[in-house]
Order: sequence, then C-alpha cells, then structure tokens
Amino acid sequence: MGNLSYVKTPEGIEKKSFEIIEENVDKSNFDSKDWNIVRRVIHTTADFEFANLLKLSPGAIEAGILAIQKGCRIYTDTRMAEAGINKKALKQLGCEVLCMVDDVQVLEMANREGITRSMASIIMASKFPDIKIYVLGNAPTALFKLIELIREGKACPDLIIGVPVGFVGAAESKEELSKLSVPHIITKGQKGGSTIAAAIVNALMYMSLEEKTIKNG
Amino acid sequence: MGNLSYVKTPEGIEKKSFEIIEENVDKSNFDSKDWNIVRRVIHTTADFEFANLLKLSPGAIEAGILAIQKGCRIYTDTRMAEAGINKKALKQLGCEVLCMVDDVQVLEMANREGITRSMASIIMASKFPDIKIYVLGNAPTALFKLIELIREGKACPDLIIGVPVGFVGAAESKEELSKLSVPHIITKGQKGGSTIAAAIVNALMYMSLEEKTIKNG
Repeated sequence: MGNLSYVKTPEGIEKKSFEIIEENVDKSNFDSKDWNIVRRVIHTTADFEFANLLKLSPGAIEAGILAIQKGCRIYTDTRMAEAGINKKALKQLGCEVLCMVDDVQVLEMANREGITRSMASIIMASKFPDIKIYVLGNAPTALFKLIELIREGKACPDLIIGVPVGFVGAAESKEELSKLSVPHIITKGQKGGSTIAAAIVNALMYMSLEEKTIKNG
Repeated sequence: MGNLSYVKTPEGIEKKSFEIIEENVDKSNFDSKDWNIVRRVIHTTADFEFANLLKLSPGAIEAGILAIQKGCRIYTDTRMAEAGINKKALKQLGCEVLCMVDDVQVLEMANREGITRSMASIIMASKFPDIKIYVLGNAPTALFKLIELIREGKACPDLIIGVPVGFVGAAESKEELSKLSVPHIITKGQKGGSTIAAAIVNALMYMSLEEKTIKNG
C-alpha cells in the first residue's frame, strides 16, 4: 500500500474547516466577534449544535480582550483545559494560565472540608486578585463555588468562561451564572468541556493579537 | 445570597451521572465491557450520540487491558489527551503516557519535511517498540501517518484509539483505520476529540484495575 492522500498542512486544514462551518451555519445570525468564538468551538468539536448553545453576555468578548491585552492571569479548573490553551499566544500577550486542582494545599482543603478539589481550588484561586478570567470547563461544583464567592464579594473577575459538562449540575450551574452581571460566556444545557473551554480562550487570544497588530500598523 | 444547593462529592456526581445515562441509552445493546467505554464517553461529553458513533473492533478491549496490565507505554497526539489520562491509575498499573508533539526533534522534522507536527511525532513514536497503545484524539494526519507506518510494517501496536475530530480528514482517517486488522476503537464520522480519547483510556485502565483486584482476591 502506497501513501494515502490527505491535506497535510495545519493552515490548510483550519481554512478548509472554517469554510465548511460557514457553509453549514448562517454567520449573519452572529456579531462578528461572537462568530469567532462560535466558529472555533465548532471547529474543535465538529458539533454544529454549539451554534445554538453558546451564549455571550453583552460586552463579554470586549472584557476578555481587555484583560488579556493587559497580560492577566487566567485560571482553569482542569489540567486538560490548561493544556489546550495556546502557549505561544499566551507568551506573546504576556498572559499566564494557572490551574491548582492538584495543588497539595487544595487537596488538604478538599479533604478537610469534604468538598470537591475543584471547589477548593476556586477558593484558593480567589485569593489571587490578578486572576481576571476564570475558565471552567469541567466541574459544575467549581462554577457554583465561584458564583457563591462573587455573591459574597470575595471574587470579582472580568470574565467567566463557564462551560461545565455533564448531567449533574452542569446546566444548573450555567443557568445560575447567566443571572450574574459579571461578563460571561456559557454553553446552555449539558454540553461543554475542557476542549470547548480552551477553544474559547484561544479565540479570545487570537482576537487580542489581531487587534494589537492592527493598532501597531 | 446564601449557599447554593448542589451535589458536592465526586463519587456522588459520577454515580448519578451513570444512572442518568442508563435511563437514556439501552445498555442491553452493548457487551458489558463495551458499555464501560460507551458510558464513560457519554459521561465526559454529555452527548448521547456517542452511543451510536463508538465502534470497537472484536477483541479491542481485551488487547488494551492486556497491554495495560503489562505496564505499557501509551502514546497520545496532544498534551490535552495526555493531561486527561488519570495519573493515579497509570501509576498503579505501572504504565506511562508519552506525547512528543512539541519535542524539538519533532518540530525540526516537521519543518524539514513540510508535514504536520502530529505526523512527525508519530514517525518519532514508531521508533519506540514499547509504545503499545496509540491514542489519537485530535489530528487526522497523525492517524493517517500511523496507518501508513503499519502498512509498511514499521509500527505494530496492540491497540489504536482513533478518535480524531473535525471536518477535514477525521471521518476518512477513522474509516481507513477500520479496514486494518489491528485492534481499534473509533468514533464514526466527524466527532471525537481529546476528552473522548482520554475517557476511553481511563475506562480501559479502570477495567484493568478491577480485573487485577478480582484476581488478587
């Protein structure tokens, strides 16, 4: 058997993929910045349903871009989401991504208080005021805890990317988030996950870099 | 605002989630080992469609469990899939997970030969005969390259978890894999991804641990 025939360059693959998405989803339903998010999530999942599930609060993208352009810290609830965030773009923007879910202090707190590690890690993260963006793609408990801390005045992020996945609490946690005035991006219902969380952060970073390039001529 | 009411223990969440899945998917359509894979993938994605998309070749699970119980190396195409694989289970089983997609030698090879880093990393991985399981959740090009190497007699893994995602080549790469006699687990069509790849490895490891416990009384 000889060599198989297939597209072999990453740029070629992404371009073709975006074309296919535009043939299948009417992008005129979206603001152009929102479309950058929607398109990248569909590219990551091959699941067109996300065109209907993604909900962005007014000003969410602008808040994210502003925080990123200032070189903020970004907190993720899982090592998977952390791994999926583009490190080259992070560096170019002077940003940093943090995940403390397997931190020893977090484990101790979780055991001591009988809560999930995800919840404990959010309590820990809330002590760092330079964390401006929370990216929660896995655990509803992390998002519920963050909402509690915000209501208690103990956390005040610029943007929450709230896309937990699953049958137990995920939809409810995102519904609760949508009631807050804090800028947020969610996926309605049960679907979500780490790949989607990372895709949204990457789309925001690419927009931030593009704006920077345009400004600098 | 007081505390929100939600399930706060990881065990409670998983148990409830599995119950909901069993209410929605007829598990009598599946062999009990296959069901462990299907159930965990749905748990990870909240997407019932995977009950129809997952295809396991005869003996795929047994081949995977055997390799894992011997303490094999597992190769993944992305840092995300690597991050999603349960490290505690890996350690208990004496297994190791490898990803070389951002290795310097891989980057050099990709640039020199004008191929994707994913393809170069598979060529590099094929030099390690102790890699018995390939876990490809992202790049169709990685899977196409692995299929080529197998046909050329340059790779001979015990199991391939082939679940690339996307609109360009993903479905075709999995279709091509399904023609091989090498044991494999795939998701038909465009859907797949790193979270699904990791979920399948984790399900295999949990079955391996369970069998070990039963054997050791």
